[in-house]
Amino acid sequence: MSICYMNGAFRPLEEVSLPLTDLVIQRGVGVFESVKIMNGRVLAITAHMKRLEESALGAGIKIGGTDVIGEITRAFREGARRDDCRGCGLAKAYITGGDAIEHGFFTVPRFFVIFSESDSILEEGCENGVALQPTSEQRPYPLVKSVNYLFGLMQTAGLDDVLECLYCPDGYATETLRSSFFIVLDGRLVTAPEGTVLKGVTRDIVIELAKADGFAVEERRPAVSEFALAQEAFITNSLYGVVPVIRIGDTAIGNGKPGHVSARLLELYDANIERWLD
Amino acid sequence: MSICYMNGAFRPLEEVSLPLTDLVIQRGVGVFESVKIMNGRVLAITAHMKRLEESALGAGIKIGGTDVIGEITRAFREGARRDDCRGCGLAKAYITGGDAIEHGFFTVPRFFVIFSESDSILEEGCENGVALQPTSEQRPYPLVKSVNYLFGLMQTAGLDDVLECLYCPDGYATETLRSSFFIVLDGRLVTAPEGTVLKGVTRDIVIELAKADGFAVEERRPAVSEFALAQEAFITNSLYGVVPVIRIGDTAIGNGKPGHVSARLLELYDANIERWLD
Repeated sequence: MSICYMNGAFRPLEEVSLPLTDLVIQRGVGVFESVKIMNGRVLAITAHMKRLEESALGAGIKIGGTDVIGEITRAFREGARRDDCRGCGLAKAYITGGDAIEHGFFTVPRFFVIFSESDSILEEGCENGVALQPTSEQRPYPLVKSVNYLFGLMQTAGLDDVLECLYCPDGYATETLRSSFFIVLDGRLVTAPEGTVLKGVTRDIVIELAKADGFAVEERRPAVSEFALAQEAFITNSLYGVVPVIRIGDTAIGNGKPGHVSARLLELYDANIERWLD
Repeated sequence: MSICYMNGAFRPLEEVSLPLTDLVIQRGVGVFESVKIMNGRVLAITAHMKRLEESALGAGIKIGGTDVIGEITRAFREGARRDDCRGCGLAKAYITGGDAIEHGFFTVPRFFVIFSESDSILEEGCENGVALQPTSEQRPYPLVKSVNYLFGLMQTAGLDDVLECLYCPDGYATETLRSSFFIVLDGRLVTAPEGTVLKGVTRDIVIELAKADGFAVEERRPAVSEFALAQEAFITNSLYGVVPVIRIGDTAIGNGKPGHVSARLLELYDANIERWLD
C-alpha cells in the first residue's frame, strides 16, 4: 500500500488531499525529491535533502522560518521503518507553493512525503537496456527539481518503446527527464558538468566509484553527433542505479545491446551502495 | 466568496480538494483557462473552450470519450448566474492529468472550475501603466496553456514594481507570463504572430477592433532593440482588456506614461465587449 506523511501524521495515501487553492495545482509551484528505500533505510538522504532545500530556494518557496527539511528528513526515516511501509521502495517528498504569494515569493508552503512501491518499469530495462527520445528542448533552471514535467512528458507520448526524453538543446545532450546521462567514448565516461544539469545524487556516486575503478570521466556535454560513435550510453538515477541505453531516437548505441562498462558500473554500484544508506 | 464546481456540484472552494495522486500535483500535468465574468455572463466562452480543448489535446490529456468541454461550459454559465457567485469576476477551469498514464497519455483526467473575485492588482495598472521584466527564456509549447508557470513566476520574485515577465527568446518579444504583448511603432501595432504565442482571446478581439478603427497591425515578433523606439507598449488579457506598459526592464517606453493608442484601444474594448459576452 502507499502511505503519506502530512501535517504530522502518516495516513493511507488515498485519504490525503490538497486544497485546490494550492499554487502547485493552479500554477505548478512545487519542488520534490525521489529517494530509494532499501531494507528500512534511506539512500543518500543528506544529498537529497540538500538538493530539496536548494530547489525550494531557487523556486522562491520560503522554508527558512520553519524546520521543513528537518521534518521531511525525520518523516523519511520514520516512514522507511514503518510496518505499513514494508515493501515500499520509493519515497517522494514535495514542497508546494501553498496559497500565498508575497513580493513574488511563496511564503506559506505545504509539504508531504509519499511512500510507495517502486514502479517496475525499469527492472527489465536494467537487463535489456532502454531507448531515449532526443528533443531540442531544454530543461529550464536545471538546478531546481520542480514538478513542471509536462513538456518533458509530452515528448514521449505514444512512444511505447521509449523510457523518457533526452534534452539536447543546441546539439548537446544534458540530461533526461528523470536521470543523468552518460556516454562511453573509447573507455572514457562523458557527462554534462555540474551547473548545466540537475546535481544528480546517483551521478555523483557513480562518478566516484568509476574514478576509483580507474575510469576517466570527462565532464562536458556529449554532442548529439557523438551518439553514433559511442560504444555505450547509460543513465543514472536514485531508484535504479545504472541503466544501459541501447538507442537514442533512430541511432543505435554501440552494438545495440547493454555493454560491459554499464554492467561494471552497476556491479560497483550494487556492491557499494550500502555506504550511502542512512 | 469563492465557489468551485467539481464532480457535478458547486461548493465553497475551501471545501474542495484534490487527491495527492493527481499528476497535476506530482508532475504539473494540467491545463487551464481564465475567463472574465460580467453581470452574470461569460466573456468569449466559445474561444476559451476551444483553446482549453486544444491545450488538453496538446498536453496528451484525453478528454475525447467524455463531454468535459460541454460540462465545463455549462458550469461556467450556471456559476456565473448563481447568487453565491455575485461579485465573482473571474472563473478558472482546470483539466488535470488524473492518476493514470497509459502509453504516455493521461487517460482519466479530472476537471473543476473555480469562481472568485478578480484580483485587483491591475485596476491601478490600467490607469498608470505597468512594468515588465524581460527574460531570454521562452515559453515552451506556446499553444498549450499549461499550469507550468513556475519558471515564469521566478523571473519576477522580489521585483515589487513589475507586473510579470516578458518572454524574449533570441532577442524577440513573444508574450508575457499571462498576456499578449504589443508595441506601437509609428502608429502601427506590432505583436507576435499566431503559432509563436498562445492564441490570445483578447489579443484577437483587440486586433479586430483596432483594424476596424483604422490601425495597421503587423504580426511579427517585436525586437528587443525596438522597445526604445516604440511610442507605446501594452498587454492584453481576458481579465483586464488593454493595459499600458510604461517600462520594460530598464527601458522606459515612450515618455514613460500611458499613451493615446492604449487609451483608444481600451475605450474601443470597453464600448464593444458586450458583443463577446455569452
